[in-house]
Amino acid sequence: MYIALDAMGGDYAPLCNIKGAIEFAKEYKIGVYLVGNEEILKQEIKKHNLSIENLPIEIVHAPEVIEMHESPSIALRKKRNSSMHIAGKLVREGKASAFVSAGNTGAAMSVGKFIVGAAEGIERPGIAVAFPNKKGSRTVLIDVGANVDSRPRHLLYFAVMGHTYVKEILKTSDNPRVGILSIGEEEGKGNELVKDTYPLLKMTNLNFVGNAEGRDIFTGDFDVIVCDGFVGNVVLKTSESLGMIILEMIKEEVEKSLVSKIGAALMLPALRRFKKKADFAEYGGAPLLGTKGTCIITHGRADERAIKNALRFASEFVNHDFNKKLLDNINTLLPEELRKSKEDDLNGVLNGQ
Amino acid sequence: MYIALDAMGGDYAPLCNIKGAIEFAKEYKIGVYLVGNEEILKQEIKKHNLSIENLPIEIVHAPEVIEMHESPSIALRKKRNSSMHIAGKLVREGKASAFVSAGNTGAAMSVGKFIVGAAEGIERPGIAVAFPNKKGSRTVLIDVGANVDSRPRHLLYFAVMGHTYVKEILKTSDNPRVGILSIGEEEGKGNELVKDTYPLLKMTNLNFVGNAEGRDIFTGDFDVIVCDGFVGNVVLKTSESLGMIILEMIKEEVEKSLVSKIGAALMLPALRRFKKKADFAEYGGAPLLGTKGTCIITHGRADERAIKNALRFASEFVNHDFNKKLLDNINTLLPEELRKSKEDDLNGVLNGQ
Repeated sequence: MYIALDAMGGDYAPLCNIKGAIEFAKEYKIGVYLVGNEEILKQEIKKHNLSIENLPIEIVHAPEVIEMHESPSIALRKKRNSSMHIAGKLVREGKASAFVSAGNTGAAMSVGKFIVGAAEGIERPGIAVAFPNKKGSRTVLIDVGANVDSRPRHLLYFAVMGHTYVKEILKTSDNPRVGILSIGEEEGKGNELVKDTYPLLKMTNLNFVGNAEGRDIFTGDFDVIVCDGFVGNVVLKTSESLGMIILEMIKEEVEKSLVSKIGAALMLPALRRFKKKADFAEYGGAPLLGTKGTCIITHGRADERAIKNALRFASEFVNHDFNKKLLDNINTLLPEELRKSKEDDLNGVLNGQ
Repeated sequence: MYIALDAMGGDYAPLCNIKGAIEFAKEYKIGVYLVGNEEILKQEIKKHNLSIENLPIEIVHAPEVIEMHESPSIALRKKRNSSMHIAGKLVREGKASAFVSAGNTGAAMSVGKFIVGAAEGIERPGIAVAFPNKKGSRTVLIDVGANVDSRPRHLLYFAVMGHTYVKEILKTSDNPRVGILSIGEEEGKGNELVKDTYPLLKMTNLNFVGNAEGRDIFTGDFDVIVCDGFVGNVVLKTSESLGMIILEMIKEEVEKSLVSKIGAALMLPALRRFKKKADFAEYGGAPLLGTKGTCIITHGRADERAIKNALRFASEFVNHDFNKKLLDNINTLLPEELRKSKEDDLNGVLNGQ
């Protein structure tokens, strides 16, 4: 197995990407394609006294880099020699089993959708994020931004992707409780998309338990919550931001008195444990589910450990034959009339990001 | 001025509602209609040695109560003699200037929209919530649940409502920066609703500054952010829940060690100040803007102080002639071709909740 790593993507690239790849290859004996500017990569390796000799690591030359502010279409159409584009192509061509990037999220998502491409039986891949919940488990929200203006059947597929992710990779439930994000708990509450999707979800063999509200992302009453990528992305960004701001606001209040400061110092180990629990880097990033290979999109601020975790995370999807299980689940969990039909168009997908 | 208070709505009703009304009437010399079961209200007043004599408080009998779990349509069509319905009617008939309820939120919203009714020039009222932001100010998100499947022009009106709310009531800016909630900062990013609304917002005389992302609710870079009520409601409920869960998770970690516990105890005053800052009760509740009178919907867990604050908050809208200013702003900020036209239907409004 080889994993194609976008060596130039992320705030600490390429150094942390190289180091993460080395640590990963050493520990797991799994191959990594370091995709990026060959000269720069070799210089960095030399400069920091690193070595990829005797490790299953190969440098694949890609002269261009997608910058953080560049639009996704640049990665697709203009910079075809970028590290991200070439890493994606390695998966499309079957040379690599998985794609990992800590670069420009929108661009990485587009590379996943259009360069790597959708898996067999899938119309629209969806990004999943596993939020830590109150019961000490995880709740998967899907889609958090790969698509906008989704239609009911797309949400059905997201539900099966989420189910498979929870059961095969996170292993937090054997029969994941699936909900649909709405306003109000009862059937019949919500917008048109929710009201049209609800009866379809009831027709499936999924463990569908009904509408979930915003708060249910954290209550632990659901293992999977499906939503349109517009809503999911807003929720994800609101949550990330609110978490940081709450800690900042507390800090600000604490700094107003010496006693509080001492208190905070004593609490530090507890606060660190909390931060670790809520930390994305611990979990390797967000998978774009339903693509041909495995696509893992990780935070731009990914350090060496986060890159290593993302590679390990990607290898788990390959080891567990995720796409095969996803296809099986589509066939067993969705009634035939709800499965992908030929007349589906892709309107709105390209506009998504 | 008289304010119609739903005396039976809320977790601590009617006692806290009575007490809040008494405190409010004493301090501000503004009238309150205590709407509820006359016998029960009189008994409560007697039992707790309270008195409404010599105060501008009148009991208005309403034999029925809307329960927390009941659907909004019950308040509109079945329980026409409920405290909530009758309080709404007092405003519609011009006997009261404002409606305040801490009861069933969905029902109170429906009473506001359909019993009190939309203000002159307004098609769809919208609920606004003022989130505390990082810069120590407030960011108003509108709509957080009064409508679903909104159309572009509804968002324009929400923008003018938010502008007027910030300028006249919150007074946090003279020229509020208005954004539209989207995914991605640049023009052209988002779903269909956002892409269709963006150019219309640019045509107005509002201080429109572009797309806001989920994180911008808390950055302080926007004074008003408009969105469809489905998305807004999910964001509101996610944020409320996440705030509580972060504090719980920290608490859980803290309880694992004695040193942390001592630390937390020392930090307590700072944590209390933080909680106060983030507390809804401090701010009187959420206004349903664009209704004939003023409608204030406050938390079910509203205590005596929160009820008093909600009444004071409602009186500020009346004192500042909010609806007159809103109408003026619609006429000066929106170009004529974008204003309400007769052919608008109300499809989807009733389905909202």
